[in-house]
Amino acid sequence: MNSTKIAVIGASGYTGLELLRLLLMHPQAELVCVTSRANAGKSLKQLFPRFTGAPGADLEFIAPDADVIAASGAEVAFLALPHGVAAEYATSLLERGLRVIDLSADFRLDDPAVYEEFYGAPHPAVDLLKEAVYGLPEIRSEEISKARLIASPGCYPTSIILPLLPLLRKGLIDPQSIVTCSMSGVSGAGRKEAIPLLFCECNESVRAYSVPKHRHLSEIEQELSIAAGEKVVMSFTPHLVPTNAGICSTTSAKLVGDLAEVGKALEEAYNDAAYVRLLGKGGCADTKNVTRTNFVDIGWDYDERTGRILLLSAEDNLGKGAAGQAIQSFNIMSGFSETSGLLNF
Amino acid sequence: MNSTKIAVIGASGYTGLELLRLLLMHPQAELVCVTSRANAGKSLKQLFPRFTGAPGADLEFIAPDADVIAASGAEVAFLALPHGVAAEYATSLLERGLRVIDLSADFRLDDPAVYEEFYGAPHPAVDLLKEAVYGLPEIRSEEISKARLIASPGCYPTSIILPLLPLLRKGLIDPQSIVTCSMSGVSGAGRKEAIPLLFCECNESVRAYSVPKHRHLSEIEQELSIAAGEKVVMSFTPHLVPTNAGICSTTSAKLVGDLAEVGKALEEAYNDAAYVRLLGKGGCADTKNVTRTNFVDIGWDYDERTGRILLLSAEDNLGKGAAGQAIQSFNIMSGFSETSGLLNF
Amino acid sequence: MNSTKIAVIGASGYTGLELLRLLLMHPQAELVCVTSRANAGKSLKQLFPRFTGAPGADLEFIAPDADVIAASGAEVAFLALPHGVAAEYATSLLERGLRVIDLSADFRLDDPAVYEEFYGAPHPAVDLLKEAVYGLPEIRSEEISKARLIASPGCYPTSIILPLLPLLRKGLIDPQSIVTCSMSGVSGAGRKEAIPLLFCECNESVRAYSVPKHRHLSEIEQELSIAAGEKVVMSFTPHLVPTNAGICSTTSAKLVGDLAEVGKALEEAYNDAAYVRLLGKGGCADTKNVTRTNFVDIGWDYDERTGRILLLSAEDNLGKGAAGQAIQSFNIMSGFSETSGLLNF
Amino acid sequence: MNSTKIAVIGASGYTGLELLRLLLMHPQAELVCVTSRANAGKSLKQLFPRFTGAPGADLEFIAPDADVIAASGAEVAFLALPHGVAAEYATSLLERGLRVIDLSADFRLDDPAVYEEFYGAPHPAVDLLKEAVYGLPEIRSEEISKARLIASPGCYPTSIILPLLPLLRKGLIDPQSIVTCSMSGVSGAGRKEAIPLLFCECNESVRAYSVPKHRHLSEIEQELSIAAGEKVVMSFTPHLVPTNAGICSTTSAKLVGDLAEVGKALEEAYNDAAYVRLLGKGGCADTKNVTRTNFVDIGWDYDERTGRILLLSAEDNLGKGAAGQAIQSFNIMSGFSETSGLLNF
Repeated sequence: MNSTKIAVIGASGYTGLELLRLLLMHPQAELVCVTSRANAGKSLKQLFPRFTGAPGADLEFIAPDADVIAASGAEVAFLALPHGVAAEYATSLLERGLRVIDLSADFRLDDPAVYEEFYGAPHPAVDLLKEAVYGLPEIRSEEISKARLIASPGCYPTSIILPLLPLLRKGLIDPQSIVTCSMSGVSGAGRKEAIPLLFCECNESVRAYSVPKHRHLSEIEQELSIAAGEKVVMSFTPHLVPTNAGICSTTSAKLVGDLAEVGKALEEAYNDAAYVRLLGKGGCADTKNVTRTNFVDIGWDYDERTGRILLLSAEDNLGKGAAGQAIQSFNIMSGFSETSGLLNF
Repeated sequence: MNSTKIAVIGASGYTGLELLRLLLMHPQAELVCVTSRANAGKSLKQLFPRFTGAPGADLEFIAPDADVIAASGAEVAFLALPHGVAAEYATSLLERGLRVIDLSADFRLDDPAVYEEFYGAPHPAVDLLKEAVYGLPEIRSEEISKARLIASPGCYPTSIILPLLPLLRKGLIDPQSIVTCSMSGVSGAGRKEAIPLLFCECNESVRAYSVPKHRHLSEIEQELSIAAGEKVVMSFTPHLVPTNAGICSTTSAKLVGDLAEVGKALEEAYNDAAYVRLLGKGGCADTKNVTRTNFVDIGWDYDERTGRILLLSAEDNLGKGAAGQAIQSFNIMSGFSETSGLLNF
Repeated sequence: MNSTKIAVIGASGYTGLELLRLLLMHPQAELVCVTSRANAGKSLKQLFPRFTGAPGADLEFIAPDADVIAASGAEVAFLALPHGVAAEYATSLLERGLRVIDLSADFRLDDPAVYEEFYGAPHPAVDLLKEAVYGLPEIRSEEISKARLIASPGCYPTSIILPLLPLLRKGLIDPQSIVTCSMSGVSGAGRKEAIPLLFCECNESVRAYSVPKHRHLSEIEQELSIAAGEKVVMSFTPHLVPTNAGICSTTSAKLVGDLAEVGKALEEAYNDAAYVRLLGKGGCADTKNVTRTNFVDIGWDYDERTGRILLLSAEDNLGKGAAGQAIQSFNIMSGFSETSGLLNF
Repeated sequence: MNSTKIAVIGASGYTGLELLRLLLMHPQAELVCVTSRANAGKSLKQLFPRFTGAPGADLEFIAPDADVIAASGAEVAFLALPHGVAAEYATSLLERGLRVIDLSADFRLDDPAVYEEFYGAPHPAVDLLKEAVYGLPEIRSEEISKARLIASPGCYPTSIILPLLPLLRKGLIDPQSIVTCSMSGVSGAGRKEAIPLLFCECNESVRAYSVPKHRHLSEIEQELSIAAGEKVVMSFTPHLVPTNAGICSTTSAKLVGDLAEVGKALEEAYNDAAYVRLLGKGGCADTKNVTRTNFVDIGWDYDERTGRILLLSAEDNLGKGAAGQAIQSFNIMSGFSETSGLLNF
């Protein structure tokens, strides 16, 4: 089986951890370089004892340097860096001939003005924006296969965009009536030394945050607008719940088309999708069925009292919402089977 | 300090447990009778070892019988029974001169047809419906003080109705645009021998349920309709999250009035309320601040992009959402201070 | 790659679920028959939605019947049945030419009298006891490879026996001074409709149980006695802690040999073991590093104040403590690589 | 009811939070001064929103200064400071006429050499050591009532010392055979910005730590030695488990006296104790029955196979293990009822 040499840049957070975990077990990925400024000199298994015994877990973190990364022979680089920082590495690694899969927000938005509105700073690499492909494989498999630069989608967006797209495309729901509440496990908030993320602050706690304008709205609305053929503005409220992983998203919107078409639209869109599992009418997606997988589960229902369609989705925020999806793009761009190294139950 | 003799009927679930816990510590309540068909003969402390050492915890459960309950000298009976069953005991205890605080759904709805629609059976005691007071003390203190029969509100309804009422009354939001997502701790599902409630089924899991028409919609819409002066129909999706207790509700609705009035309306309504804590604009209510209290915390925000008002509330589903609220009504009807036995932090 | 046809008997509990999960992904196992009296007619994915999309997840549970099982072509049967029941199926399946891996306690003890003492009933198949191999691959790989009937060890025993064996064999600790405390996740208590296993009863709770004589003591002492060359009696206290999976065992015993030999004895015993990860002196095993793997992590320390050696081990109670270990034996008896289908991080 | 003016020094951790919570509700405590260098200028309710609505929650934290504290009129100061720092404030506050209840380890040990051995620095206030009373009210009520300086015991020690004392005093167990494993909720590790205390690092994790010589051994062995009349050295292994609060301790020791005396010894010692609840032979203490109370539950059993007595205890590490116990001493030294402000279920 042919394989590809991989570098992971900035791999000491929860997304980086899951990315490394999946890559260490991927039969067609060879991890040749991992960087972490804070952990340079440590091996993967020192930082993440869970990896002990994995072939490749003796690899040592190095300080990030584009030349050294390129010299490692890496063909593809995954960036698990903060936004703003990622753009810089993307630029220099692309220059050195690597293909880049960026898990940050830096290349997800087509419009630099929207980036500045939501991220509070001018876009750091406007020239690359046009080239970057928003890497949602269910809708851009073709572009992903040819891309040099993938902007892998955010965790919330994946769980919200996928159920909505088929309905918006067919004009079945009113694009201006969308309301979403999402609940995320705590790993979504990052691996940061911060009091609000301590066990005793999150356990036995449920709370909304980042209201009313979470940054992920920018990419969600971009993709929904493309599908609807009009500018979509929606309501989105994220919540933190005491689980390690998993996002549950509940979305509703006014039905304006034929109810009988709703289930069909979802089936047509996703019957051949490797990682979308349709639960049908009345199916309530449960995060415990998707954690540690690349699946997104989607159920739906119709509330005849309010005339609203309900979309009930669940994914692993670190899997399909981050690391898994990035590897799915990697498989596609490498010509591998889309499920290579990603099929877990 | 004067005190009242109390009976608790059907006290072996989580609501019953919290009711007993609060009553055992209430300085003006004397527990004289507790019933539980399944646990007759056991003492409170045998069933709930947590109560060991509490004066009164040696009291034994008896099988429920209206005459025996009346003979205990109880002046007020709390019913912690399933709907349908509660109505029967309410009738016979009222006949024997007790005042009744019912924590079930049996007397919450004014219209027996709505009861039948949502609970799937004809109302068991239509005659008493007119007399019963929906016991939300923040809006019906006067009626509660004189009532013989209180229908104590459900857990979700309390967290949803309280933030919405002042805005609906002042016409600040569009009553037909309301969408609520709520997240409840597992105690809300009851103390039942059921696989879906096992630790390993709920831990590391988030899921919607009872979509699209949870029974609590009936009482929520009844109260919202009264406040709005028109029939209100809304979208409500409950979720189960892995905490013992706590409900977090996120509600949004289109602003149709003056934004500057929103905060004022909440303050006017609740500045003197003993158990409503207003968190102001931008305040995200967190269940961990209200568990084991009778408080409901309410924050709000305005999403200028969608024109929607966000209402962010949190309560303890067993406290303000059930047992605490029932005792608040008890205090009012007994002429005690509203905070007697209920102030905890 | 050659593969083996598999039947799983009694597969609706947590051990069965993990066994099925691992077998569905095993590259050399073909699941041809699954039985569950209570769930006959349902498919794997109906009972366990997590399996949706897995090749093989459409297989339907049948009622258990030895002839039907044999007719499925199964070459190896895993028994995930209660003790007492397992022996009966073992007998009839062996007669029909299948090899049997029993995850119950029925064939773990050499002495039927000890079985009767600990399990409260005469042994149901004494004749097979002699043939059965206690399937701890780290010490009986050779016997396992030839066995017709494997008694796969219990969850607590695996975590306790493995660290102790090398020290007992070399006479480094006093065999009569062993004290162990173990903490198990709730899945260890089974998937039973029982109040004490509800989320709200286990969450925010830690408690000892089955004191002072848990059934697993019988097999632990049997294996320790063989290693020590004398009858070993030890103190063992299991605790239930609020995690889904994982066992952490802390064992101490008086050092009677040379301290310098302790680390060496562990290394000699396990340096080539595929699934034992030695953490060295001062290493505290953490269940979160072994969940969903077949690893057992073992650290140790010396308390010079009391003269006691501390052994600190962690495993997944459903993995190396049950399903994973059974599959490890299956790999060995099938002539496959010991890590086939079992290497996860 | 007469009341006492209180200062709390260093009140921004979990122990401080619980101390403030209990004092805000204590009918005979008037909180007049709270200090926190990091949070000076904030009110109690700003730092801990849970306190909103409590009379007294508007009090503002000030930077710690002995003169300012004394000027507040405080009669008693609780110190919730790190060891080493506490001694300094104790000295200066005693000089200014306050009585001091220190929750740190600074005054728990009689022997400054043991302090230096376990805490790695010379004792900061040797002169006060002799005066300080180790504030375990169950055995030193008399001394506590007269003390100027109380050293309130540590969380683990309380759960371990209380069950052992009566048996050691009567010579029923071998003092050199004691082995304890304890499991603590995460609040025991403090409110610190540290990766190992993040939700995702503690949830679904069980691990031993501080082996083989946790600092609390020093005070445990001191008290056990007094009771046994000989120098006691014991084995103690603490574990971190994913709960907010609660300590479960399992202790075993060789029975050397009359088995029939064991239960009697416990009853004699604690039948009149306000906060010790004896569960009898076979009683397994469960942390969920003691959290948010000042109770310690104690069960026991006898393992005739090993000849060891098992002691099974549970307490709230922040309650009886810290803040509650300190207030119990406060009640005694103030001449209040021992249960004033402390009876919760």
